[in-house]
Parts: sequence; C-alpha cells; structure tokens
Amino acid sequence: MDDPFGCVSRQLELVEETLAATIASSVPSLTDIAAHLIEGGGKRVRPMVTLLSFNAFDGKREADILEIATAIELIHAATLLHDDIIDGADFRRGRQSAFKRFGLAPTLVTGDFLFIKAFEFAGKFDETVVRWTADACTQLTEGEMLQGALSRSENVTPENYLEIVQRKTASLFETGAKLGAYLAGDNAEDIETVGRYGLNLGIAFQMMDDVLDVVGQENLLGKSVGMDLRDGNPSLPIVLSLLDGQKAVSQAFRCHEPTESQIRRALDAMENGTVIDRARKFSRTYAMKACREIEKLPSSIYRRGLKALGRSLLDRDA
Amino acid sequence: MDDPFGCVSRQLELVEETLAATIASSVPSLTDIAAHLIEGGGKRVRPMVTLLSFNAFDGKREADILEIATAIELIHAATLLHDDIIDGADFRRGRQSAFKRFGLAPTLVTGDFLFIKAFEFAGKFDETVVRWTADACTQLTEGEMLQGALSRSENVTPENYLEIVQRKTASLFETGAKLGAYLAGDNAEDIETVGRYGLNLGIAFQMMDDVLDVVGQENLLGKSVGMDLRDGNPSLPIVLSLLDGQKAVSQAFRCHEPTESQIRRALDAMENGTVIDRARKFSRTYAMKACREIEKLPSSIYRRGLKALGRSLLDRDA
Repeated sequence: MDDPFGCVSRQLELVEETLAATIASSVPSLTDIAAHLIEGGGKRVRPMVTLLSFNAFDGKREADILEIATAIELIHAATLLHDDIIDGADFRRGRQSAFKRFGLAPTLVTGDFLFIKAFEFAGKFDETVVRWTADACTQLTEGEMLQGALSRSENVTPENYLEIVQRKTASLFETGAKLGAYLAGDNAEDIETVGRYGLNLGIAFQMMDDVLDVVGQENLLGKSVGMDLRDGNPSLPIVLSLLDGQKAVSQAFRCHEPTESQIRRALDAMENGTVIDRARKFSRTYAMKACREIEKLPSSIYRRGLKALGRSLLDRDA
Repeated sequence: MDDPFGCVSRQLELVEETLAATIASSVPSLTDIAAHLIEGGGKRVRPMVTLLSFNAFDGKREADILEIATAIELIHAATLLHDDIIDGADFRRGRQSAFKRFGLAPTLVTGDFLFIKAFEFAGKFDETVVRWTADACTQLTEGEMLQGALSRSENVTPENYLEIVQRKTASLFETGAKLGAYLAGDNAEDIETVGRYGLNLGIAFQMMDDVLDVVGQENLLGKSVGMDLRDGNPSLPIVLSLLDGQKAVSQAFRCHEPTESQIRRALDAMENGTVIDRARKFSRTYAMKACREIEKLPSSIYRRGLKALGRSLLDRDA
C-alpha cells in the first residue's frame, strides 16, 4: 500500500531543515542540547497535522506553513525538555534525556531558547496566529499545573483527566490544525472543523501514549514502562483503575517513591484487568470522532492523510 | 528636589495594572506564583527605560508602549523565576523565592507562562519588534549558558564577564530603549543612540548589582550577600579578585560548596581590598557613557529622567 503521508514528506523534510537551522546558536552548548532532543527522533506528528490541514485546504504560501509547522514542533520540544526536568526523566526517545545528560540548568535554558525561537516564527504573522499560538502555549502550562496539582491524588476524576489532556496535549494539535486551515485562507467554519479534528486526535494520541506506558515494549518506546506511576501522573489506565478501586495501582500511584515491585504489581494488575482495553476503546472513540469531523471536507490525498493519521494512532507501538 | 521619574509615574502605574491583568489565569496557582514574584516588589527599571525613551521621542500611541514595557518586565520576571531554580535561591526581593516556596515544577512552568504572555504582547507588533524582542531573549539564554559554562572557573576573563553581562542583562535594557524610540516612530540613528544608552546603563546596573552582592545590606537587598560566590557566578568583584590572584576569593569561588567561613573570608578580602572601588568605578564609567550618549537628544523632562536613572544607579543600595 502506498504511504498516505507521502504527500507531505517533502514539506516535512523542509521542516526538518528549518528546525536544524533554527537551533544554530553562537553558543554551541545550546545547539548541542537542542539537537540532542530534536535530532534524536520524534514522530513529528504535530507538524504533520499542520501541513496536511494546510494542503487539504489548498494552501499556497508554503513558506508560511513551514514556519508555523516548525514553530509547533519547537513548542513541543521546549515542553519535552522542561517536562523531563519536572519528571526527573532519565530517558527520552531511546537515549539519555537532555536533563540527565546535560544537567538541569542547561536543559532549562535550552527549553526557553526553543520557546523563544517558536515565538519568533509565530510573531511574524498576524494577531490571530499570535493569539492562537500563545493560547495553546498558555493551555500547555495550565495543563501541566493541573496535572501537578493532581499528582499522586486518588481523587482524580475522568473529567480532571480529560481537562489535563485537552490542555497539555490536544490544544497544540488543535491549534496546529486550525493554523493550517487559517493560513490556507479558509473560512471560519472549516477552521473550526479541522480544529475539532486536531483536538480529538490529540486526545486519542495522549490516551494511546498512556496505554503504551503500561503495555508498550521498552525497546520501541525508548524509555521504561510505568513512568506515569513513578512520576505520579494520572494517566487514563491509572484513572480508570482508581475508579475500579484497584488496590495495587492505587498504592503505587499514591506512593512518592514506589518500589519496583509495587510498580510491577500495578502494571500487572492493569495489563491483566480491563482498563487497557477500555483505554484503547476511549482512544479509538476519539480517533474516530476526529476522522468523522473531516468527512465534510473535500476529498483529497491530504484528507486521506489526516484520516490515516487517526487510524495509525490506534496501531502505535511507540 | 522633584522626582525625575514623576513624568512616567502614571504610565508605570498602568504597566503595573497590565501586569496584574496579564497574570490572571484560570489555574489559580499560576497566578499566585507569578504574583508572588511580580507583586513582591522589583524596581521596574526596565519598563522605566522603555517608557522614558518612548516619551523622549514624543511617542503618541501610549497603548502600544504600555504593552511593550509590560512585555519587557514579564521577560525579566520569567528569567528571575528560572534563575532562582538554576541557582537554588532561597530568597528574592526580601522573601522566600518562588522556587523555595512553591517548588521546582510550578516555578518552572510559571516562568514559561510569563515568557508566553510577553510574546503574546510583542507578537501583536510588526516583524522588527518581534525580531528585536526575540533576539534579546535569545541573548538572555546565551548569556545564561555562557555564565554556566564559566561557573566556578578561575580562567574567567574580564572579556568573558563583559560578554555575559551584555547578553544576560544589558541586551534587555538595550532592546527596551530601542523599542521605545522605534514605537515613537523615530529614525534609525536615534534608535541606535538610545539603544547604546540602554546597553551601557544595563552594564552599569549589573556591575552595581555585583558590588551590592559583596557590600550591600541584607535587609535592603532582600537576600544574603555572597550569593555570587555560593552560586559560582563570576561577578565583577570576583573576576577582578581572580586577576589579582586573591587567594581567599579564588578558593571560595572555585569550591562547589564553600563553607560559611570561606565565604566570609572571601567577602572580607573583597571589602578590604580595592576591587569594590574599582568595580564601582567601572559601573560609573558605563553609567556616564550611557548619559553621554543621550546628550544629543532634544532636552526634555524625559531625557532628564533617563540621565537621572543613570546617576541613581550609582547611589543604589538595593
């Protein structure tokens, strides 16, 4: 079968080049740390959504969308650097995290540097682009704060979970999709439509991330499973387990420094119970919702790409 | 004598209101942490420079400059939050630092939030404003990295010191001053002139900060003296002491965890030697240079304010 993303592969390569050019600094350590993360992999799913959306609406000014797709990935990269500090993460994308390798201060400052570069791109555009981008970033910080406030809390509800995921993950997908349509010159209704696609896709994406943190293969994930339990982050399988009164999960999750055997027991309980299937179903529901949203768009290889992205999420193994 | 800054006191109050409105978030902890820093004091010297510059060039669109002056202070506040994490600072502006009070993760995220809000303001303006603001922020991160790389290094030179200070402190003063003139609609030559004022003022300001870290009164500073020695930051008195081969300073500075008696001996050596006088003279030289730069501007209460700012630096006690 042909590659449904082949239609944006050239543009994705240009985003890659723009990313590499953007992180060049007169201070080599900034470039090194940024490159460690950015050139160390990543699925580039956010720029892919932005590019597909732009092309689906027949956008013409390619230079514009390359800058915005780059900005979206830079924002994502900045949050990963800062998240790894917050979680004290040892690994990211199959190698040492920047935090572990370069230390707290250089990693923190490099995260700031990437945020600044993202905003330099976004700031070239009109007030709508700036406001949407800033709103998405504000939501990222708000989602991170909400997650921190509910860290290791057994009172976290599915509604809390959904709010965190919408802000912390889905808002950037939503905004990237909307900016694609907006910069293609499309109308408000289509922009909202593709925004709902992005929002639902982002929720589905995070839910699968949460599932893989329990049942993923560590060599493919590039990090250990069980990180959400260790970090006290309320993932979907954890939230569902808490609702079920699952003792092993609740104990490990509430514990500030769970032992490896507590983690193992909690992971086993989730794997052997129903929460993983239920979480996968939730993810599928949101991915399908995303795909249904764009039914009304004109048929094109780009709409096909957007739908393929929704389906590919469900087969993710990393 | 009348207050030389009275001419911008109303505008500074409006900046204060804009700051307070900007940090309002639907997630109260973000607002609380931002307010802890921003409403906890600060001299607002950066927005003052920006406002005085704008008025000195007879700027008319007050709403614009209020947003930019607010953005400049937000950027400064964001870096303070992140710097306190990097330095592990216990105190800031006479009370517990946000890092100490609220913890690493919430403080880091609040710093990001303030950066985002700053860029939301700057992003409303044209590409020049965005580029200058982003460049200043990039310089802040580069200066921070350079400082980190030379932390506790006895090989740090006066040239290194000046580069760090230009990037880490003076670039934001310079950019704020330039933006004031630019948004007043002034010509390129005047913009460069007031930019040089800002650059030199910023260098003088940081040099006095470094002096006060040795000889300041702790109750006025709102923090302990000797922080640069504890954090391994190459301040001007430290760099001059290293050049002199001053043993007590060199020992405390190179040490990863200097004892209180090492710190005390190093501070005594600096107070009793010539480095403080020499550092004050350097600061005075840069402040005078700043004031001379603006001689060529038309005489006004605003130019008088800019000059008074240069002079007031030299009498700083906090």
